[in-house]
Amino acid sequence: MRNVKLTLSYDGTDFAGWQRQVGFRTVQQVFEEAVFAVTGETVHANASGRTDAGVHAVGQVVNVRLGWDRPAPTLLRAINANLPVDVVVRLAEDVPDDFDANRQALWKLYRYVIHDEPVADPFLRRFCMHSSWRLDEVAMAEGAKALEGRHDFRSFETNWPNRLSSVRQVRRLAVNRVGGYLWLDIEADGFLYNMVRSIAGTLLNVGRGHWPPSSVGDILHAQDRRQAGPTAPARGLFLMRVRY
Amino acid sequence: MRNVKLTLSYDGTDFAGWQRQVGFRTVQQVFEEAVFAVTGETVHANASGRTDAGVHAVGQVVNVRLGWDRPAPTLLRAINANLPVDVVVRLAEDVPDDFDANRQALWKLYRYVIHDEPVADPFLRRFCMHSSWRLDEVAMAEGAKALEGRHDFRSFETNWPNRLSSVRQVRRLAVNRVGGYLWLDIEADGFLYNMVRSIAGTLLNVGRGHWPPSSVGDILHAQDRRQAGPTAPARGLFLMRVRY
Repeated sequence: MRNVKLTLSYDGTDFAGWQRQVGFRTVQQVFEEAVFAVTGETVHANASGRTDAGVHAVGQVVNVRLGWDRPAPTLLRAINANLPVDVVVRLAEDVPDDFDANRQALWKLYRYVIHDEPVADPFLRRFCMHSSWRLDEVAMAEGAKALEGRHDFRSFETNWPNRLSSVRQVRRLAVNRVGGYLWLDIEADGFLYNMVRSIAGTLLNVGRGHWPPSSVGDILHAQDRRQAGPTAPARGLFLMRVRY
Repeated sequence: MRNVKLTLSYDGTDFAGWQRQVGFRTVQQVFEEAVFAVTGETVHANASGRTDAGVHAVGQVVNVRLGWDRPAPTLLRAINANLPVDVVVRLAEDVPDDFDANRQALWKLYRYVIHDEPVADPFLRRFCMHSSWRLDEVAMAEGAKALEGRHDFRSFETNWPNRLSSVRQVRRLAVNRVGGYLWLDIEADGFLYNMVRSIAGTLLNVGRGHWPPSSVGDILHAQDRRQAGPTAPARGLFLMRVRY
């Protein structure tokens, strides 16, 4: 059996997330079905992590163990020919047997995209959150600084406590703007449930002027989800890259 | 009654085109319904021209006659609040009573977008045609030159003859590329049915190396639709701008 690493992009709009669920269309399901159509093998696609319903991926990483013996570029083309139009395999490569896309993920980069011009864009509506108010990205960046570093992020976790630890290392949280588009890039060694979306909802309140930038650090230290902003909509969120 | 000019953008994917048709979802219908919801007036939206099923618009222009007396920016916001997410009004302005968005259109610019990297893009799949072959845009631009100017374009018309004349003036036909994206910009004083999509299908055959650039002029002069390439898919086509 070989071990193959695959990098996937998907439009999450019409999926109930990554993970298989009976009765729902999920990315894992359509991907594993495409692999079966090509190889006749029932594989388990081991992803870097789940993405939730409606969340997109530019660079989700998975590994699968296969007997099929054609070269990786042939595998890529054959799987793509069997996937629906909202998922593609961008890269496929043979990796050492011990590579595990989930356990060995060191850093993940998520991006949250916001459009803040008065009139929404019908072409990008699936891929960003729309704010009718112009946001103050300088205030948002100032607030965001409080979240960089190693912290207990339980204030930004839905359904706490659902993990052994809610301590994570955020090595970068950048706020960028080009024209009417603004995006948050958050790179961390792991993410709690809805962590990026609740950080985005909190920074939105800062960007709208409802909360001062200093509130972000206060919310972090409160260790209380009720203090943070709302969970921003899934459609603005992208899993961009996983580092190993 | 005032006369208002409105510029609309829409994602055409889920519409059966601009024009009202019983039993189908059309842009004209949802737009006129939104105007009714705001003003209580049953208006006729007079567009620069129809767009076909699946065709998008960045700058479709319409005019409507209204009694409603609030300022144009208020009208814009109120209509947008009543439109579905795949249509927006980008601009609204009062115009002289004799302005007619259809009859006074002087030049229309259409854009046809093609993605020609091996792996399709799940995020832009609604908004471009995908070619698995890399296209030769230099050959396409060379072939395109034969179509600039005033010609009888019946070779590029579906269902000929359906108009009094198939002579049109193409004042610009440009082939552009950035990375794996290539687009045709065609500006003309009018377009025959499926004209841009059959020109795109013809230039695709040139870009793939199936036909020499000189074949485009031969097809034009043959005045025979069967000589031209296939009608390229609607999803790559955008009405960009109308000049008055």
